[in-house]
Amino acid sequence: MYTLYFSPNACSLASHIALAESGLPYQLRRLQFAENEQRSPEYLKHNPNGRVPALVTDRGTLIESPAILAFIAQAAPEAKLAPLEDPFAFARMQGFNSFIASTVHVAYAHRRRGYRWAERQESLDDMAARMPQNMRDSFAIIENDLFAGPWVLGEDYSVADAYLFTMSDWLGGAGVDINDFPKVADHYRRMRQRPAVQRALETEKEAAAA
Amino acid sequence: MYTLYFSPNACSLASHIALAESGLPYQLRRLQFAENEQRSPEYLKHNPNGRVPALVTDRGTLIESPAILAFIAQAAPEAKLAPLEDPFAFARMQGFNSFIASTVHVAYAHRRRGYRWAERQESLDDMAARMPQNMRDSFAIIENDLFAGPWVLGEDYSVADAYLFTMSDWLGGAGVDINDFPKVADHYRRMRQRPAVQRALETEKEAAAA
Ligand SMILES: N[C@@H](CCC(=O)N[C@@H](CS)C(=O)NCC(=O)O)C(=O)O
Ligand SMILES: N[C@@H](CCC(=O)N[C@@H](CS)C(=O)NCC(=O)O)C(=O)O
Repeated sequence: MYTLYFSPNACSLASHIALAESGLPYQLRRLQFAENEQRSPEYLKHNPNGRVPALVTDRGTLIESPAILAFIAQAAPEAKLAPLEDPFAFARMQGFNSFIASTVHVAYAHRRRGYRWAERQESLDDMAARMPQNMRDSFAIIENDLFAGPWVLGEDYSVADAYLFTMSDWLGGAGVDINDFPKVADHYRRMRQRPAVQRALETEKEAAAA
Repeated sequence: MYTLYFSPNACSLASHIALAESGLPYQLRRLQFAENEQRSPEYLKHNPNGRVPALVTDRGTLIESPAILAFIAQAAPEAKLAPLEDPFAFARMQGFNSFIASTVHVAYAHRRRGYRWAERQESLDDMAARMPQNMRDSFAIIENDLFAGPWVLGEDYSVADAYLFTMSDWLGGAGVDINDFPKVADHYRRMRQRPAVQRALETEKEAAAA
């Protein structure tokens, strides 16, 4: 049994979708960001960086979306969530996921989490104002260069699709029109039709309302 | 033959060290950051994000340090640069590397690359002033929680050690005393004794002087 620590609509959605696709047994634990539960001493034992996602396994806890996503794919090979037999294709997937984690997600975090990197309110406002342009630049790179189609890696679905979907889902709130990126927009619509994605979204919606 | 695009003392040093440890055949291509070669149309074909490292293989180009590091380990299994047979241990390594890429390296980048995320000079100054504290916080997490010792993952050396070394090497320039983190400081000294690390440092020094 795996346990995923998540917060509704956070980046942990990608790992949640991957678990829902995987067929692995799992349970969810919601952290209340409003109560700063991600920084509680109890949770910091799981993730000393105080962030979701964290995936508790019977051997210990894993952190960081790209690592958790690849692990889920490896733990459920029959679900075919990654090109596990091809190191080059696997590295392409990891490169995409690392670009999301270190460039796209980081760009987005500068809107509301700017206090991680600066002190003054004016700096935070400056960062927040710049965020939509950085998201647009990142999505232009995905649309034009990184996205093979119909899935991120080409013919085969992978956990990279769950991660891209999670970022695409933030675009509206970031003030960016997803339709400026036609391949990404089409990918987003097809993702929403997948039963596992619908289940994960429904579960997170219920958790958020509870 | 692999080709690594690098800039002296940039994060590409980790991939350079991994190649030097791997026994794989490789050549280096230096990009002149001072001339913005990382944004030339020619290089953007390799990495549309305009950054080093990029690793050119006979099947195409790989981007992002965590992906390149894992790929090198998989391409040279006999060099034992990652726990390739153990998905949990591999995910621990990837989690560490993703933490470096998306938290530690990003923290450091706010000193000189703050213009990625904000416009005003005051914001950039604010970010630069905050950077040392964020590096200290990140290294405290590594020292106290993530570093198993004697290597990052425990008894076995891996590409995560090359990546940690690269970040440790930046600490002095960031105004942070590495000796505040005794395990990391000891790791840094042991890394500097490895022949592959010495060769990579020497090659980058020569490239920088050329
Ligand atoms: N690189 C990490 C980033 C994790 C992260 O930043 N998670 C956010 C939610 S999207 C979080 O937990 N934020 C809580 C906070 O900053 O206090 C990953 O990919 O797992
Ligand atoms: N997440 C990327 C980050 C790469 C990165 O930011 N590289 C820096 C050097 S340390 C760079 O190329 N900077 C050039 C620039 O910003 O123009 C990775 O880990 O490969």
